[in-house]
Amino acid sequence: MNKAFTKPATVNASVSPKGSLEVLSQLEVQKLKSVSENGLYDLFRSCALAILNTGSGTDNAKAILETYPDFRIDIVQQDRGIRLNLFNAPADAFVDGEMIASTREMLFSALRDIVYTESELKSKRVKLDSGEGITDYVFHLLRNARSLVPAQEPRMVVCWGGHSIGHEEYEYSKDVGHELGLRGMDICTGCGPGVMKGPMKGATIAHAKQRVRHARYLGLTEPGIIAAEAPNPIVNELVILPDIEKRLEAFVRVGHGIMIFPGGAGTAEELLYLLGILLHPENADLPFPLILTGPKSAEPYFNQLNRFISATLGSEAQKRYRIIVGDHAEAAREMVKGIHEVRAFRRAKADAYHFNWQLHVDMEYQNPFEPTHANMAKLALRKDMPVHLLAANLRRAFSGIVAGNVKEQGIRLIEEHGPYEIRGETDILGPLDELLQAFVKQHRMKLPGTEYVPCYRLKR
Amino acid sequence: MNKAFTKPATVNASVSPKGSLEVLSQLEVQKLKSVSENGLYDLFRSCALAILNTGSGTDNAKAILETYPDFRIDIVQQDRGIRLNLFNAPADAFVDGEMIASTREMLFSALRDIVYTESELKSKRVKLDSGEGITDYVFHLLRNARSLVPAQEPRMVVCWGGHSIGHEEYEYSKDVGHELGLRGMDICTGCGPGVMKGPMKGATIAHAKQRVRHARYLGLTEPGIIAAEAPNPIVNELVILPDIEKRLEAFVRVGHGIMIFPGGAGTAEELLYLLGILLHPENADLPFPLILTGPKSAEPYFNQLNRFISATLGSEAQKRYRIIVGDHAEAAREMVKGIHEVRAFRRAKADAYHFNWQLHVDMEYQNPFEPTHANMAKLALRKDMPVHLLAANLRRAFSGIVAGNVKEQGIRLIEEHGPYEIRGETDILGPLDELLQAFVKQHRMKLPGTEYVPCYRLKR
Amino acid sequence: MNKAFTKPATVNASVSPKGSLEVLSQLEVQKLKSVSENGLYDLFRSCALAILNTGSGTDNAKAILETYPDFRIDIVQQDRGIRLNLFNAPADAFVDGEMIASTREMLFSALRDIVYTESELKSKRVKLDSGEGITDYVFHLLRNARSLVPAQEPRMVVCWGGHSIGHEEYEYSKDVGHELGLRGMDICTGCGPGVMKGPMKGATIAHAKQRVRHARYLGLTEPGIIAAEAPNPIVNELVILPDIEKRLEAFVRVGHGIMIFPGGAGTAEELLYLLGILLHPENADLPFPLILTGPKSAEPYFNQLNRFISATLGSEAQKRYRIIVGDHAEAAREMVKGIHEVRAFRRAKADAYHFNWQLHVDMEYQNPFEPTHANMAKLALRKDMPVHLLAANLRRAFSGIVAGNVKEQGIRLIEEHGPYEIRGETDILGPLDELLQAFVKQHRMKLPGTEYVPCYRLKR
Amino acid sequence: MNKAFTKPATVNASVSPKGSLEVLSQLEVQKLKSVSENGLYDLFRSCALAILNTGSGTDNAKAILETYPDFRIDIVQQDRGIRLNLFNAPADAFVDGEMIASTREMLFSALRDIVYTESELKSKRVKLDSGEGITDYVFHLLRNARSLVPAQEPRMVVCWGGHSIGHEEYEYSKDVGHELGLRGMDICTGCGPGVMKGPMKGATIAHAKQRVRHARYLGLTEPGIIAAEAPNPIVNELVILPDIEKRLEAFVRVGHGIMIFPGGAGTAEELLYLLGILLHPENADLPFPLILTGPKSAEPYFNQLNRFISATLGSEAQKRYRIIVGDHAEAAREMVKGIHEVRAFRRAKADAYHFNWQLHVDMEYQNPFEPTHANMAKLALRKDMPVHLLAANLRRAFSGIVAGNVKEQGIRLIEEHGPYEIRGETDILGPLDELLQAFVKQHRMKLPGTEYVPCYRLKR
Repeated sequence: MNKAFTKPATVNASVSPKGSLEVLSQLEVQKLKSVSENGLYDLFRSCALAILNTGSGTDNAKAILETYPDFRIDIVQQDRGIRLNLFNAPADAFVDGEMIASTREMLFSALRDIVYTESELKSKRVKLDSGEGITDYVFHLLRNARSLVPAQEPRMVVCWGGHSIGHEEYEYSKDVGHELGLRGMDICTGCGPGVMKGPMKGATIAHAKQRVRHARYLGLTEPGIIAAEAPNPIVNELVILPDIEKRLEAFVRVGHGIMIFPGGAGTAEELLYLLGILLHPENADLPFPLILTGPKSAEPYFNQLNRFISATLGSEAQKRYRIIVGDHAEAAREMVKGIHEVRAFRRAKADAYHFNWQLHVDMEYQNPFEPTHANMAKLALRKDMPVHLLAANLRRAFSGIVAGNVKEQGIRLIEEHGPYEIRGETDILGPLDELLQAFVKQHRMKLPGTEYVPCYRLKR
Repeated sequence: MNKAFTKPATVNASVSPKGSLEVLSQLEVQKLKSVSENGLYDLFRSCALAILNTGSGTDNAKAILETYPDFRIDIVQQDRGIRLNLFNAPADAFVDGEMIASTREMLFSALRDIVYTESELKSKRVKLDSGEGITDYVFHLLRNARSLVPAQEPRMVVCWGGHSIGHEEYEYSKDVGHELGLRGMDICTGCGPGVMKGPMKGATIAHAKQRVRHARYLGLTEPGIIAAEAPNPIVNELVILPDIEKRLEAFVRVGHGIMIFPGGAGTAEELLYLLGILLHPENADLPFPLILTGPKSAEPYFNQLNRFISATLGSEAQKRYRIIVGDHAEAAREMVKGIHEVRAFRRAKADAYHFNWQLHVDMEYQNPFEPTHANMAKLALRKDMPVHLLAANLRRAFSGIVAGNVKEQGIRLIEEHGPYEIRGETDILGPLDELLQAFVKQHRMKLPGTEYVPCYRLKR
Repeated sequence: MNKAFTKPATVNASVSPKGSLEVLSQLEVQKLKSVSENGLYDLFRSCALAILNTGSGTDNAKAILETYPDFRIDIVQQDRGIRLNLFNAPADAFVDGEMIASTREMLFSALRDIVYTESELKSKRVKLDSGEGITDYVFHLLRNARSLVPAQEPRMVVCWGGHSIGHEEYEYSKDVGHELGLRGMDICTGCGPGVMKGPMKGATIAHAKQRVRHARYLGLTEPGIIAAEAPNPIVNELVILPDIEKRLEAFVRVGHGIMIFPGGAGTAEELLYLLGILLHPENADLPFPLILTGPKSAEPYFNQLNRFISATLGSEAQKRYRIIVGDHAEAAREMVKGIHEVRAFRRAKADAYHFNWQLHVDMEYQNPFEPTHANMAKLALRKDMPVHLLAANLRRAFSGIVAGNVKEQGIRLIEEHGPYEIRGETDILGPLDELLQAFVKQHRMKLPGTEYVPCYRLKR
Repeated sequence: MNKAFTKPATVNASVSPKGSLEVLSQLEVQKLKSVSENGLYDLFRSCALAILNTGSGTDNAKAILETYPDFRIDIVQQDRGIRLNLFNAPADAFVDGEMIASTREMLFSALRDIVYTESELKSKRVKLDSGEGITDYVFHLLRNARSLVPAQEPRMVVCWGGHSIGHEEYEYSKDVGHELGLRGMDICTGCGPGVMKGPMKGATIAHAKQRVRHARYLGLTEPGIIAAEAPNPIVNELVILPDIEKRLEAFVRVGHGIMIFPGGAGTAEELLYLLGILLHPENADLPFPLILTGPKSAEPYFNQLNRFISATLGSEAQKRYRIIVGDHAEAAREMVKGIHEVRAFRRAKADAYHFNWQLHVDMEYQNPFEPTHANMAKLALRKDMPVHLLAANLRRAFSGIVAGNVKEQGIRLIEEHGPYEIRGETDILGPLDELLQAFVKQHRMKLPGTEYVPCYRLKR
């Protein structure tokens, strides 16, 4: 990465907790402080930098880190609790020397989640060797972040889609968010720009119009992606899950329905993840509204995606979603209708509204996938596999491509070893190739302005 | 007006009060109902139509009324209180058959203000023959609308400027609103599109970022302008004052500072009004932050305006404002600084924060001006007049031009009698002519898309 | 009155409005101030003294006024609004020099009501020559005091009964209040000690137990009685109606049910008032829960009252109430049951919950009765009268007795002219005599410790 | 215990969580449920019974358990979370079949604390072998109960004193609570009747008068005492600490000042505990308001207590408290003054307001003391000991006497083995004997109505 950045404005500041970590024991403060001297410091520093860097237009994690090489964040112990001292922090996070309230909240959310994750893992409580154990772990991370609100009607709509989309698609995502907001829905996205921001922005204005006071804008992210997709400041609940798989599970357990907008590899990963789960026989009767939507101009995109699903996962998969093109109000109406069914179902089953316990998530979808060149190369992509395993592997393939595109570690691996190799049957690699080429042509792989160099090679 | 509108979508609906008029006596309901059968009905109907028509892009009051010729609004009496039955109402005001909360609030605000105004005038209490009496009347209208909030720190920034401005100026006004919102300021505008909407939109996002919960978006309007400048739905307090002069007085009494963006005749009217008041000797020591601001591209505009003020009102007038070009953050910072001075001043004088009692407003500025052709023709515009009377008459001249441009009655008068004639000394009409021509050239007189036919003729 | 008071502790203080009158126009402040120099000053001063004197144990208005002869309360005008300067005020109303919050609220409630009443009467709006006009007036007084809360479930229980009752009856009234509070009911009384305080105290504890946050303790009083029955400090809404008849109408229009505890002449007056109204044919189908309740020891009292009603108004009247003795939980349960019927009825009729519009109150019950010796002497008490007129006159007789017992003006009249004479048929005066004698014997006429000298003479 | 109880009224009911445990994972519900089948069930059942039995007048834990022999409480697992099914529960905890809100909250507080305590102990986190570890444990128990509220001004007054006191002392404690409440103070007691209830009741009324909305009534108890001193229903935060020593530490760490009313052995234990800590050199400069107060009639009691302290711990100890007799307002004023000093001190040291980290508590005061006959017999009570160890042992002696008087296990031990023997030097046992005899004579050892049989024997 040789792109030149002009030396940006920075400030030094000292902030005390807000929203999280307000009441800490002296031992906890010590532990947090010691964190700053061990391995977690770099993780926290890069998350903090991403949060402070909210306004910027880049999605390259390495670039951000390189822009603020002398950014430092110290954890200071007081009798009263904790403080953070920041040095050479991006000036945009401050107004007249005071940190923006949402940024301050998110900074402490990051600290909270990173340290809690670590301490949970060290405790005996967490059992990551069973599906129930992993689900329980995700539940605790969310509860610790106070994102499981009891006695609240189902209204959390997850919006997935590209962080790098054109103006028309961005405006459309705002329109959908506006229509959802007019109907009282909350919004959950993966943080970041593009589709992660549009629906929240639209909903904010709609909630103002409808006098909705306590709307939730939930951002779920993970350390590997936060730098590339920094939380936009509308997010009023930020949770950093430890890895992609926990983050995906968090999405499908707290969301009451999912809306997919046009996107690139990450969006395809998410769609395949969800379809793979919904295709599991145990989930056959579970209502789960899933709507693919975009502006009229995105029709070819959705047609292609639909063809790809049809060619690889078949018509059963196609039954679990509906495509609505060029009608933001209709998309919102359908989602609300679907969520009413979810509500009725949970009520009938005495299931919680705040966490989808009934959804079966196979361990195949829970275990982290590390996108090394070796792991990518040995992914099985064959037509004779059970459809649910094929979906899992396709999901992993896209996961690797996302890493190679925007994640710090993935970018490093590609820089060192060249593109990933993905092998498989022609019946699968063919449609996959078409889809990926379309993504490249439509500039869905990276934020515009940079030419895309593929981080993968398909080997039929 | 022969422009063709396609027949718009309409709905019928029945709504009960929200925010206002929730507790009415049976006599009051009867009185409201009887209103619907007497002269006030047309006024209420056209205000209601403007409110319901919020989203549309037109600023022509007559056109709106003609678009919904069979719109009807009935006041229904119940033991419990009042209901409004709407027939053939614009469909955009509804979501899935339910009226948007803000629209519903504003509908009843309109009813409240129209009827309260009427009943106050009929009571013996109101004395419009003295300055104190008129100020008292404005106070009561605002208090009845619950817009005088005690014990709240000064933070109401009035934003004035054009309803018909270019994209860049609109974005700039959003940016200023955003910066004001980041600093915890509330926004008050005259309702409508353009500069009346931009700062509120920017502030809404900023308030979300700063976790400001109870931000105020106050819209002050009057029956003659509401159709042309319908309240945008972010407005969460709407007050309809009976005429321009009361509305202007309301602005300067509730606002703690005023920000003027580029605009046309209406904006010039507002600036002249305020300068005329601030130039009064009794107000010499009163702090009143007044900032003229716009994007870099608006520099010529402000230079011209500045020249016009210099040529007509002189350098004393120029001392009461500051022009800040192309720096939205600096504009906001200056405003906040000015408001701190206002706070210190009021505190020292034990004056209220919610109403600027100390500001002296001459009756010259309080008495309504009716822009008939005769009144316009006899406005004195001479250099040897006291500067404060000259400002008053210049204000009236612009007031007439606004009426001829966008107000229902003004448009009718111009249709009947041709353009207004404005007479005066060359030293004044010269700079005035330059200014007006610039407004026309810059499309500041009307929303774009329509060619502007001047409603005035200058007679030197 | 020769009873010696030791010179009580007093303080000087200056207080600004809280809860009412926070936003006043300069004209209003002037008007309020001028009030202090005209006839209303004495009224306000004596109400203020009663409110400040909350804790004391006396019910003699004159005595209170005589205890603080140099108490003064000045209305001070500031730009910001109003202040009250108090001199030689009872020290018990202050904690470490600061006025107790509830007392401060009530002080401004008194000012608000006295001035509003006056200004309403002077306006053209009020028409006291019709029943609707009087009801409308009562409505406006209550609304101006913000005691008409829309969209709130019916739960206001009016508790009537003696201000001078024994310990056992007081404890019982607390127990009933406790049971009502446990069931989420609010309490409305006439202010003062005894039954006016017990249910509120019991309910306060019960509301704490049930975590009811916004419970209402509404006190309705009138200038003539407030000194004798000062609002206890639990009252969190105080309204001073202009006279007994408006106050009684306020009770029956805001209350959703009425509970009558043992009492003396005032309680009998209230019962007769309510029965007279409920016996009107137009109210025949209106649900209105009315429960007479007291401890086991009060059984003879209620038997006697019941006999008196039977003998004078007959069995129709007896059908409108239920007597429950010695079972506070049952009394509360019955009241809640009755209020559920009220709710269903109002819902069916689209009537408001916050004001009982449907209740017909005859002008006979609305017109003020002045208890002069002449008026008392000419009350018709005959068996051949329509029962509803007889009830009205019996009510007036008791009203006079209350005045002679505890009201400043009544006491003066009796001091001057000796006891009132009440004339009537033996069939009525007989039972009346028995009832009154029982009241005297049971010390229900005055707070204990003073011997009761009758202020009336029955002339059969 | 042979006292006969008439078979009390009971009900069956099913309740869901409120205030605690609303969001549980499926594993947590399983764990809670399994609790009901293992050793903790009895503990939870007896705590639950104490909470449900709130209104009753007994302080004998065994007696309560024997009164409801067939009371059962089942933990039921639902997908949504947890439910409690109760069988044969005391009817007084219900209103018309619905559990009183505060009781329901406390029931789940008990479940929360018992299970959390257990699970914390089982985790590796808790280190009970160091002073810091124990303090940290207490901190976590309190935080988990949400009783550490950040950013709240210091205002928590701990009230200690007898649960068995006379009417006059009870009324006095109410008066002090009233005065504290008028000054905005919150109240913390050990739950139960007498002094644990009086100040809360007084404060509730005072908070109502002062319009204090979010007052806290914090009850700290432990399993061994809860049955004898059931939380009164005003308590709106209940925390069950695992043993006496943790509970005492919780008192001194969350309280900003301590008020001691007349009491018996438990009160003496508390006073000795606190004095022992405050006498530690490290706490010499720490402000800690400690006021001993009671009605005029309690003067001899306080004189005797004062003499006992003087004779055993000396004048240094006497300097740490002030005795105020017969002046509830003065006692409250002094407390508020002391708390202002605490606030200034913590502010200067950047110490938290919600937890007194700076107070040094020696392990001597943290380690649980088990009052077996052997442990009681070997307590060293000698004049040549360091005063702080002597205080610790005197505290233990009183702790044992409390157990023998009212705790289930203590009562059993005494029934089996006869009274405890306490040995020591005459200089100490002499004053101790006098003090204990006075307690017996003044009926401070047990609730009245039962004759007190001493559970101890002093051996000089």
